[in-house]
Amino acid sequence: MNYPNGSRVGPKSRPIFKQGYGNRGMTLENDINDTNKFYLETDRAVIHKKPTPIQIVNVDYPKRSAAVIKEAYFKQASTTDYNGIYKEKYIDFEAKETKNTTSFPFANIHAHQIKHMEKVISHGGVCFIIIRFSKLDKTYYVPAEILLQSWQISLSGGRKSIPYRLIQEKGFLIPFQYQAKVNYLDIIDHLYF
Amino acid sequence: MNYPNGSRVGPKSRPIFKQGYGNRGMTLENDINDTNKFYLETDRAVIHKKPTPIQIVNVDYPKRSAAVIKEAYFKQASTTDYNGIYKEKYIDFEAKETKNTTSFPFANIHAHQIKHMEKVISHGGVCFIIIRFSKLDKTYYVPAEILLQSWQISLSGGRKSIPYRLIQEKGFLIPFQYQAKVNYLDIIDHLYF
Repeated sequence: MNYPNGSRVGPKSRPIFKQGYGNRGMTLENDINDTNKFYLETDRAVIHKKPTPIQIVNVDYPKRSAAVIKEAYFKQASTTDYNGIYKEKYIDFEAKETKNTTSFPFANIHAHQIKHMEKVISHGGVCFIIIRFSKLDKTYYVPAEILLQSWQISLSGGRKSIPYRLIQEKGFLIPFQYQAKVNYLDIIDHLYF
Repeated sequence: MNYPNGSRVGPKSRPIFKQGYGNRGMTLENDINDTNKFYLETDRAVIHKKPTPIQIVNVDYPKRSAAVIKEAYFKQASTTDYNGIYKEKYIDFEAKETKNTTSFPFANIHAHQIKHMEKVISHGGVCFIIIRFSKLDKTYYVPAEILLQSWQISLSGGRKSIPYRLIQEKGFLIPFQYQAKVNYLDIIDHLYF
């Protein structure tokens, strides 16, 4: 969420800075957006982040200027954040950053998103999650199948996270590159082409 | 945009009703959302509308309740509104309603969206526009290629619309069905499978 800085409008309001609200995942999100922009500019793939879902309640229509949304709320996403096309394949993924160093906790993944990932796989899409362990400075491509298996285990009373060692074993480390900072398409090439 | 009804907050504000702000295309949008829901429930395809892009400027964080967006603006979409997967293919489309009875005017299509459609086609996706002529009570599936050709003609000084007779000739009428109200996947089956 690359929001512009706003001005204060009241005692309880505060402006949104790039590293303010929604700080979790912000750096990873920016890196992925830059990567997608690079892919688009070099005509390698067409992958975009979906806009944040917002529930709009009230809108102001000032004369001779743009409509202003005066009351709205963040809604929970029912799908993943990113999708698009690469080499004729449907690509669909989520991106999450964690400060944890031993596992990826399921706290930020919703049941809808799991359901969506299952559907994407069953219809022949390429589905995965990009997980950044910020303290370890490591970013992994984790096939959705691994996430779904661990999620199933958690539903049967097992741990509500994916152990880091499983991610190391079954996931794919994404090396940082200058232009494609999170160069996940190279992993897709390795896995599918 | 299926917004809830809000309460008035000031003299210049007005609540958003389903048929209020953004009325153009609203009925078609609801019909397509219902269709996509039906496709999802019957496990035929996974196609969603992207959220409306919003530029957030100020957010309130009341104690013990959800964050309230107090100032935000509508942004222009850089892609089309709908995408997803069907029979392993990437599907991408826009939907527009017009009261015009002789042509589809380009007024509501942006250059970004045209560029996006060109990219989707070149990467092997299925791309099209669903156009409803509300006064004629006809809804057409128009392959993006037809839209792009007419757009090119308009850039060279030609008409800034697609004639209805061209849509009749090159497009595909989508018959209204009770459950899949805008059953565009049958047209895709006809064209691609």
